Amino acid sequence: MASSYELCCRECGKRYENQPLSICDECFSPLEVRVDLDAAKKTVTRESIAQGPTNMWRYQALLPVPDDYVPQTPAGWTPLVKAPRLAGRIGAKNLYIKNDAVCMPTLSFKDRVVAVALANAQRFGFDTVGCSSTGNLANSVAAQAARLGLKTYILVPADLEAAKILNTQVYGANLIRIDGNYDHVNRLSSQIADRFSWGFVNVNLRPYYAEGSKTVGFEIAEQLSWRLPDNVVVPMAGGSLITKIRKAFKELIALGLVDAKDVRFFGAQATGCSPIARAVKTGADHIEPQRPSTIARSLAIGNPADGIYAAKAIRESGGWAEDVSDVEVVSGIQELAETEGIFTETAGGVTTAVTARLYAHGRIKPDELTVTCITGNGLKTTDVLAGAYEQSEAIRPRLTDFENYINEIKELNELVSGGVDVR
Amino acid sequence: MASSYELCCRECGKRYENQPLSICDECFSPLEVRVDLDAAKKTVTRESIAQGPTNMWRYQALLPVPDDYVPQTPAGWTPLVKAPRLAGRIGAKNLYIKNDAVCMPTLSFKDRVVAVALANAQRFGFDTVGCSSTGNLANSVAAQAARLGLKTYILVPADLEAAKILNTQVYGANLIRIDGNYDHVNRLSSQIADRFSWGFVNVNLRPYYAEGSKTVGFEIAEQLSWRLPDNVVVPMAGGSLITKIRKAFKELIALGLVDAKDVRFFGAQATGCSPIARAVKTGADHIEPQRPSTIARSLAIGNPADGIYAAKAIRESGGWAEDVSDVEVVSGIQELAETEGIFTETAGGVTTAVTARLYAHGRIKPDELTVTCITGNGLKTTDVLAGAYEQSEAIRPRLTDFENYINEIKELNELVSGGVDVR
Ligand SMILES: Cc1ncc(COP(=O)(O)O)c(C=O)c1O
Ligand SMILES: Cc1ncc(COP(=O)(O)O)c(C=O)c1O
Ligand SMILES: [Zn+2]
Ligand SMILES: [Zn+2]
Repeated sequence: MASSYELCCRECGKRYENQPLSICDECFSPLEVRVDLDAAKKTVTRESIAQGPTNMWRYQALLPVPDDYVPQTPAGWTPLVKAPRLAGRIGAKNLYIKNDAVCMPTLSFKDRVVAVALANAQRFGFDTVGCSSTGNLANSVAAQAARLGLKTYILVPADLEAAKILNTQVYGANLIRIDGNYDHVNRLSSQIADRFSWGFVNVNLRPYYAEGSKTVGFEIAEQLSWRLPDNVVVPMAGGSLITKIRKAFKELIALGLVDAKDVRFFGAQATGCSPIARAVKTGADHIEPQRPSTIARSLAIGNPADGIYAAKAIRESGGWAEDVSDVEVVSGIQELAETEGIFTETAGGVTTAVTARLYAHGRIKPDELTVTCITGNGLKTTDVLAGAYEQSEAIRPRLTDFENYINEIKELNELVSGGVDVR
Repeated sequence: MASSYELCCRECGKRYENQPLSICDECFSPLEVRVDLDAAKKTVTRESIAQGPTNMWRYQALLPVPDDYVPQTPAGWTPLVKAPRLAGRIGAKNLYIKNDAVCMPTLSFKDRVVAVALANAQRFGFDTVGCSSTGNLANSVAAQAARLGLKTYILVPADLEAAKILNTQVYGANLIRIDGNYDHVNRLSSQIADRFSWGFVNVNLRPYYAEGSKTVGFEIAEQLSWRLPDNVVVPMAGGSLITKIRKAFKELIALGLVDAKDVRFFGAQATGCSPIARAVKTGADHIEPQRPSTIARSLAIGNPADGIYAAKAIRESGGWAEDVSDVEVVSGIQELAETEGIFTETAGGVTTAVTARLYAHGRIKPDELTVTCITGNGLKTTDVLAGAYEQSEAIRPRLTDFENYINEIKELNELVSGGVDVR
């Protein structure tokens, strides 16, 4: 390899110099970045990583950016927390949450992929960047491009959540609402990327972009004191994240940073948009596109670009995929908040509900070390909880009013539960 | 000292064993925690801190929790980022942002104080905790208490932002809306804390709670490679945060971890609730309570508990305080987002606008190393931006429609700016 990384066709193996390109010109399959692990092995150790910054750039040597790249955005390095109270509720005993609901700077794992994509956009000389997005990617591209002084065009389905729209526009990005679903938006983006010379993070920069997701896997392993878990549960939209966490684990094994282990991968989707879960369940060798209809809009990709690779990864690993109803998504959000104090968006509701289902169905055994990936923040999808909580009357600021109020809720609780616990 | 920390009256100096108490029974002044720095000096070094976790608990030895306390919430350790583009707009040259808009777990600096308060609530045996709050504290107490399995009663002014209400209720907390402003809510909370044996984080646990804010100061110093800045700009509500950042710097100097330096402190308030800024500007020796009227609701405390200490700290340090209009608050939010890709809530809008004003008035000189503290997340106060951004018509997913659209915005921009830049 000329550089420490290069592009490579996933199917025919043809190799390409680094450039903004995502499709093989021989066989029209997707390109992927291949990092020169033999070279990396000489310099990357647990210690060298520990000396890096406390963000995803501690793994810079394993990411497709030039050696002398100076990181601009301190994304990633989110907490991996034990989840004993959630575990108790769903019959798990050794459950961890990787919490990208608090990822910097825009509160989803997309901050990781965008950080890598924009480093490459700058390297390739683009002064204008763009993306097609189900929301989180839009937020992250808008925020990170603002900081870099890049112009931004962002395409989203017209019916996106208000918070995700505002959290794109506030950074000064050009937001273009498209009358259609994500798959329409994505197709248009490909045409735009051909026509305009813009860096589209998930089109012509896609191979670089996707590598950013590896850092979720790197962090999980490092935060488990350089061990791999038995199982990982991952939400799926385009299907990229789940394949890249798997790739991360394989790279760590190849580098000798963790002991070899077959980690099982479990994919999570909403039933209203579950083309990958469907393929896993039916054993199909292709993805049957769907027309999305779910409140989990960030996962609403009916024709997922990496769907077939995601399904393959899941099956190869001995894992499984599940999909849950919109009602379960909302319960999943509430359950995670009530037990672990983490407020996630609909995608995290999907993941939590699917995780519960996997334990209930015996697909994951209680004692296995399982990591469930929470990938986005609840403040972005508050609409799905509208009406979920009663707005009781405001009381006057007097102790007697307060005492009356407390007695009322006590009585109410006794009526409901037969107990005396006021909560 | 019997323990490595104890309570101590701020005025008469009377010392108290650790207990849930916030007012001196001799002179009715507020109590404060005093950490035994001589003892800490023997064990705390830059290296010992660097070996700690990448969250605020790396400073555990300087916080009022038992030596054997096992941290439950990985709060803090937020980025300190250079802000060259914001600096360029406001005439600064050496400006940093301490970004607690992405503080874990609930996206404000209050996660730090709550983490310390709940550690003490558990130590003192409370199974029910509470607080009075302008919103962020409510979110943080609700989330962290959920994770610890504590019962929670939270009192807020009835007119709080929808996102802050939901982001309290989702964790299963009992949220009680009070017909009045924060000062009414706070007075009622004091009465409740006397009547019920609950741990009120900002009432009977207040001395412990407040110490958590020191970690903002510790982190700033460490992230500047163990140097103190020339100036710090801090938003003020009750006035606690600003005094505790100053205390943190003094402790670091006493411990020999940084060179001694007189850091100037600048306080930021909204004009519609600016009792501390007023006192600083007029040189008054007391705080004149105000009836708050501002969109910066998280800062809307008309009768601030630590107001007089905040004003004193600012004056002693050679700093200043400023207050800005609600219109400037919104511009501050937008300016920070557009330049640095950080979306902050109204409190951060206040801080950004005040920072700009301080440079404009020559109170801060361009070359001085200045840190401005962004303390909360924009997704919690989206209402103040309602109507700020046009919702253009959705376009059809076709290249020609897109090209027409782009040409339209280009023409529009040329009309407006006389230039050809489409952004
Ligand atoms: C919050 C969240 N989680 C998970 C995903 C899925 O990622 P992928 O498209 O890589 O499968 C997305 C994609 O938009 C997302 O926004
Ligand atoms: C976002 C934010 N910033 C700053 C403050 C001010 O903190 P203090 O009350 O310690 O002055 C608050 C208080 O609620 C807040 O919510
Ligand atoms: Zn090929
Ligand atoms: Zn006293």
